[in-house]
Amino acid sequence: MSDKKEDHVLTMKTVNPRAVEMEYAVRGPIVTRSVEITKELAAGVQMPFSSVLPANIGDCHATGQTPIAFIRQVVALCTYPQLLQSDQFPADAKQRAERILAGCKGSSVGSYSASSGVDVIREDIAGYIIKRDGHPANMDDIILSCGASDGIKTVLNLMMTGKDGNEAAGIMIPVPQYPLYSATLTEFNAFPIPYYLNEENKWSLEVSELKRALTAAKGKCLPRAICVINPGNPTGQVLSRKNIEDVIKFAHDEKLILLSDEVYQHNVYAEGSEFFSFKKVMTEMGAPYCNMELASFMSASKGYMGECGFRGGYAEVVNFQPDVRAILLKSISAKLCPPILGQVVIDTIVNPPQKGEPSYEQFESEKNVVLDLLKKKAKLITKLFNSIEGIKCNEVMGAMYAFPRLFLPEKAVAAAKAKNQSPDFFYCYQLLEQTGLCVVPGSGFGEKEGTYHFRITILPPLEEMEGVLEKFKEFHLKFLQQYK
Amino acid sequence: MSDKKEDHVLTMKTVNPRAVEMEYAVRGPIVTRSVEITKELAAGVQMPFSSVLPANIGDCHATGQTPIAFIRQVVALCTYPQLLQSDQFPADAKQRAERILAGCKGSSVGSYSASSGVDVIREDIAGYIIKRDGHPANMDDIILSCGASDGIKTVLNLMMTGKDGNEAAGIMIPVPQYPLYSATLTEFNAFPIPYYLNEENKWSLEVSELKRALTAAKGKCLPRAICVINPGNPTGQVLSRKNIEDVIKFAHDEKLILLSDEVYQHNVYAEGSEFFSFKKVMTEMGAPYCNMELASFMSASKGYMGECGFRGGYAEVVNFQPDVRAILLKSISAKLCPPILGQVVIDTIVNPPQKGEPSYEQFESEKNVVLDLLKKKAKLITKLFNSIEGIKCNEVMGAMYAFPRLFLPEKAVAAAKAKNQSPDFFYCYQLLEQTGLCVVPGSGFGEKEGTYHFRITILPPLEEMEGVLEKFKEFHLKFLQQYK
Repeated sequence: MSDKKEDHVLTMKTVNPRAVEMEYAVRGPIVTRSVEITKELAAGVQMPFSSVLPANIGDCHATGQTPIAFIRQVVALCTYPQLLQSDQFPADAKQRAERILAGCKGSSVGSYSASSGVDVIREDIAGYIIKRDGHPANMDDIILSCGASDGIKTVLNLMMTGKDGNEAAGIMIPVPQYPLYSATLTEFNAFPIPYYLNEENKWSLEVSELKRALTAAKGKCLPRAICVINPGNPTGQVLSRKNIEDVIKFAHDEKLILLSDEVYQHNVYAEGSEFFSFKKVMTEMGAPYCNMELASFMSASKGYMGECGFRGGYAEVVNFQPDVRAILLKSISAKLCPPILGQVVIDTIVNPPQKGEPSYEQFESEKNVVLDLLKKKAKLITKLFNSIEGIKCNEVMGAMYAFPRLFLPEKAVAAAKAKNQSPDFFYCYQLLEQTGLCVVPGSGFGEKEGTYHFRITILPPLEEMEGVLEKFKEFHLKFLQQYK
Repeated sequence: MSDKKEDHVLTMKTVNPRAVEMEYAVRGPIVTRSVEITKELAAGVQMPFSSVLPANIGDCHATGQTPIAFIRQVVALCTYPQLLQSDQFPADAKQRAERILAGCKGSSVGSYSASSGVDVIREDIAGYIIKRDGHPANMDDIILSCGASDGIKTVLNLMMTGKDGNEAAGIMIPVPQYPLYSATLTEFNAFPIPYYLNEENKWSLEVSELKRALTAAKGKCLPRAICVINPGNPTGQVLSRKNIEDVIKFAHDEKLILLSDEVYQHNVYAEGSEFFSFKKVMTEMGAPYCNMELASFMSASKGYMGECGFRGGYAEVVNFQPDVRAILLKSISAKLCPPILGQVVIDTIVNPPQKGEPSYEQFESEKNVVLDLLKKKAKLITKLFNSIEGIKCNEVMGAMYAFPRLFLPEKAVAAAKAKNQSPDFFYCYQLLEQTGLCVVPGSGFGEKEGTYHFRITILPPLEEMEGVLEKFKEFHLKFLQQYK
């Protein structure tokens, strides 16, 4: 075939229209531009800054966080079991590795596991949930995945109807939301039912709004599930126990499956806030709530470990009908299995060194360093944003992001619209070009009409962040001035 | 909700009908039964055998293959860089690990890579293809994936139409085929266009049959691509260069994208046979063929390495329109990235120790031990099957499987049908129950009406395999006797 477009089988006319429509802002055009800028800087192009600061994605190690030694020791031992003879590794790391290897076929992390994961690791996950919640958990309900994203897609896929229009599956998602949800619903041709978090009240999740949203979707789809992200991404709120109870009651009354994205369960910073799993709250509410269908999701990529590259994650799927669960398991069989070393990382998180074990103190200390720093940065960033004219930022109660609101001058909004850009995209693009700071426009997460935001991670090192926020302030005030 | 079925949101009536329909025989009911049997044996239940022999899946390490030391050394070094100081590791493994770590953000395999993979690894893959084919390859055409399966699904997804009925995408797939293809097409609601391999002529791929198949599908779908598995799974044939040329011409004339599944490119055993990549042959055919859209797939799970658990794989995607390629890259962005250590394993395969490097000799020796044994077993299994009454087996020219044909007595066929089972499922189930040998019925791969087969891997250790095939023969003759 020649270069002529019409000679290609796949063109913009024939390619999957859902893939064309799908957007994932966390890796959207601004990030693409930041990669180009990095290459231009390396090639000697002069810019007003010397390097790009990636604050677009919750990628802890990319911005300098050190891996937790114990996690990497267990993975290295599983990978190269000759190291079990080395005195360079603590006994508890060796014991974990030996136990996992005994659970792998042929004692090798190079063999496939069951599609739901290695049994001993599923046992350990159930043990972790029991300890966390104070209630039973069953390893048969645990499905490991390639990052939490993969588990979320697997469960969403199960509830698709295979039909279009008002027979498509409707899934309630928060706005703002982590765009994996909108991207997946587009890919699956499902109907998103957006419910708005209340920015005026710390991004709270209000049942009246859930009712409004569901009512508005009636007749447009077959509502199947409600997804809640707690702690919130990109909004950083942490739900109270009472709030979770209200959501559970709503889901029960409306016959919706509960999908709780709890990947930030270790990331709670606000005084008086605490993480409660939906499973725990639902269990303690008793019948009929404790029998509701629930899938909750966890990841190796967040928390204090930040091991994104290992792609470890799991779902706990409770109260599904046995024949439906069999379909769920069948649906993941063709993927063969999640990466074994991602599973191993999950094991170190759910079965960390215990008091009295040789790695305990170092593990706890490394973990607390990370979490304490995140807490400091969460406070710092909120305070700083709120000190700037034209910006208002809710407290970062948990997770890894601030999602400040931008009050943009009308002229800036008009200039953006003239370029067919959302105003916050317009703003973030200039922020990148002028300061090297890479953040994600709020429009990529969804936001209330006429409001503008951006998401910035709290991951860069503290000393770097102070300087960056100073540069940010300078840019922002200049921007306001320019479009006054 | 109570236990009453009607109280569940997801029931067999509401669950995704495509997930219900989807089948993946390699992990189907016979494998599920084999897992139960293993548990029963462990619990002391008496059986006519002492352990299950898994010959259902190409899972090399599960049946005793030893990992290649160099691969594991590089992975361990990347995981726990403190080991770079250890004198337990050869210099070339350290050099590879240092280079990869320098290509990872924050020098950590715990950070995300680009969705298409780590740049230095993509460079190395391009270098491998250049060396293999003797023609240019471009790292921008390389997309790493979570096993080859993930890459195959990504490319298939791109060519879906998002429509039903005769507007659905049609994909030509071989019969017999690796059931990932049929499973994925069911999941995506695409239209499979089966073309039959010719068992009478060593499972050859004949253009007249391609024409027949495509003609039969006219008006039923929008044909988009032809998928070829070479070396073949489950059929083990290796295509000649002339044969590949014919397929390329056919695809060109019919405006089909070429999808070449080349995960067994290191597994060629037959005298006079050689692996030719579709990319090489297409390139050497010159215009217009060298400009055709092609995606080829490779894996870390097969070959001599067999590192299934790492989920390493990649696709080379050439001659796609730039805007279509941009959509392809966007479509994988929400998955974030493939597991970094799976990418690292791929790197060791495409950039193995070179002559003069410290690991060269051990690496070559370990690799040849595996490949020589596979070659021996390929010959042995063909010879043995052909010595048994009622069985006929084409030569295992490549890949990791024999796919013998079973000539079953009419009474056995009737007994199977009475149980609503395919006759080869009926046969394989009894084989498992009586001997512990776990194989996959041919019906799971597709087969010509009225013919029966099973797929058996050639992976079990040689000494074990001889005994197993003896037990198999005994079972088979008894089975023939029983249904005479």
